[in-house]
Amino acid sequence: MTKAEILKSSHFPWLETEGTDTDVVLASRIRLARNLKDVPFPGRADFSQLAAVREQVEGVMPAIAQAMDQDFEGIQLEELSPLELSVLVDKRLISPALAKNPQHREAIISADTRAVLMVNEDDHLRIQCQAAGFELDKPMAAALRIDDIIESQLDIAFDETMGYLTALPTNLGTGLRAIVYLHLPGLVFTKNIQSIAGIAPQLGLAVRSLFSDGKEASGCLYEISNQLTLGFSEKEILDNLKNAVAEIVAHERKARKALALYMKDQLEDKVWRSYGALRYARLLNEKETLELLSWVRLGLDLRLLGEVDRDSFGDVLIASRTSCIQYLADSENLSKNETDRLRAEQVRNVLAAHSQQKG
Amino acid sequence: MTKAEILKSSHFPWLETEGTDTDVVLASRIRLARNLKDVPFPGRADFSQLAAVREQVEGVMPAIAQAMDQDFEGIQLEELSPLELSVLVDKRLISPALAKNPQHREAIISADTRAVLMVNEDDHLRIQCQAAGFELDKPMAAALRIDDIIESQLDIAFDETMGYLTALPTNLGTGLRAIVYLHLPGLVFTKNIQSIAGIAPQLGLAVRSLFSDGKEASGCLYEISNQLTLGFSEKEILDNLKNAVAEIVAHERKARKALALYMKDQLEDKVWRSYGALRYARLLNEKETLELLSWVRLGLDLRLLGEVDRDSFGDVLIASRTSCIQYLADSENLSKNETDRLRAEQVRNVLAAHSQQKG
Repeated sequence: MTKAEILKSSHFPWLETEGTDTDVVLASRIRLARNLKDVPFPGRADFSQLAAVREQVEGVMPAIAQAMDQDFEGIQLEELSPLELSVLVDKRLISPALAKNPQHREAIISADTRAVLMVNEDDHLRIQCQAAGFELDKPMAAALRIDDIIESQLDIAFDETMGYLTALPTNLGTGLRAIVYLHLPGLVFTKNIQSIAGIAPQLGLAVRSLFSDGKEASGCLYEISNQLTLGFSEKEILDNLKNAVAEIVAHERKARKALALYMKDQLEDKVWRSYGALRYARLLNEKETLELLSWVRLGLDLRLLGEVDRDSFGDVLIASRTSCIQYLADSENLSKNETDRLRAEQVRNVLAAHSQQKG
Repeated sequence: MTKAEILKSSHFPWLETEGTDTDVVLASRIRLARNLKDVPFPGRADFSQLAAVREQVEGVMPAIAQAMDQDFEGIQLEELSPLELSVLVDKRLISPALAKNPQHREAIISADTRAVLMVNEDDHLRIQCQAAGFELDKPMAAALRIDDIIESQLDIAFDETMGYLTALPTNLGTGLRAIVYLHLPGLVFTKNIQSIAGIAPQLGLAVRSLFSDGKEASGCLYEISNQLTLGFSEKEILDNLKNAVAEIVAHERKARKALALYMKDQLEDKVWRSYGALRYARLLNEKETLELLSWVRLGLDLRLLGEVDRDSFGDVLIASRTSCIQYLADSENLSKNETDRLRAEQVRNVLAAHSQQKG
């Protein structure tokens, strides 16, 4: 995708629904933190040093593009408006930290948007690779392939005892953060989500809500990631996360089965009404959209609802973000009412495009 | 319509939307109370007397059918099940009082269902004629035409001073009850309905909710009728009611205009969401159905919603009554959940049949 397409699109391959366990796992992501040797971390580097880092990373890109067999689009963040930066953050293509100080920062994004190199985030380089569904191995392999090329051409800060050196101690060692995005309506509805979030730290994992409204997770969307990067091999880190996610997936399915069995009519009603609201509402706020979307996705996954395809979920999820609505309207100064009106319109359009059978 | 069709149908000409002021007035009804001379009122008559009354009225029917240029279907109420009786009451074809003691009671219904002769209700005969919209003159003329034939062939209790004698003193004199059915969402929403209901008694009128849930009118549906039958001519009674209704219609339109002007987005949202809920819900109770239906009708009348035709309102209104759902399922012993499930299904079917453009 070109920069313009990336900013405009609401469809990303890593939110598609063909893949492993996509009834519960939306996507999986690997992120490797790397730094250049003998260059201050970005937080302490001056502009000329940041510019030099960017230049060095850009120099490696042709080799990476060839190895990954696709083009990469380098987006200079200082050229983006604050709204455009928000759009990239909301689309989860770049981190909030990268967008915070756009000067001499860059996001280098692969044509399929699965791979992103963030330059001068907390670390000089963050290699981010993602895939749809429960799939950590492929993005890990992709990230390591990119890392191999980086390390073959650039001098990366690595300590024999500590491992990869990083700006934050929480990334030290492997520099690996593996994240799995989960949709857990069953566990939320049966009130089991808290116990899972409670156990996670003991397993070296963190459970967070993907879109949080205070302490509640809007739309039953969560992310679970490894907390520890040091003292374990990359394989151990991934295996630990995989085991935990596999457990959560099993629990979630059990909870859904119980709901579908004991509250069949109420569940179908909720699912279809939610679809009806997304389909017909003229005002939708961000939080309600996520909640309605969650029920619709559950209905799609339980095959209670057949009017739209499952990929509509990811598309609505992205398209309904306030930043994307503002970007579409080319204005950051929309009133809340106007934003909600445009959001409802946009949601209807996206759903209509996904309708297999109308009416 | 035949008896079977009357019991099954949910479409009645007097709920159609072609007519005068049908944006506010659903239907108008005239009812004349008449009694045979020297026969005890039904509440005091024995079975042989009731049977004789029925026989006398039936004897006049050929002449009435000829004058009205349509067939009449005589339904002997003792042949109906309690559920079938409820269906006729809920369809507002017969009064609850007629259904209460079905023995020797009869409803003689014209083919277009606009005219109904109720035999042995509180009075020996109640002539009921109705029309769609704000139209009291035509049903009045029809009722008087029927009455003329009745009076030309039967000996009707009439006192030169008192007028027509009736079982209840509230019907004495003209025996005329004129009723107008109104949909008043604007006045309900702007909280002006109470003042109108408060003024009515001073005008000799009564305002009641059509479907009441405690003291609230479900679906913003009201009926307004004359309270006084004695001491005024039929024309005076009708003119008084007409003037009041014309005032209410004007107020209601003003309230709607204000809503459409000052709360445009919220109103559209409410209308479309209500349509979406009726269109997609899997469980609907009677009260919520009326409320959703009210918003949909308002949306149709304000031309905010174009997906269904306006006649869908009357059809859903009738089809969604619990008695009609039970009749359709051929069971009075449905659970609440099952009733609500079938109601939602029925509402979807009726709306789908009325959809001009699906989706």
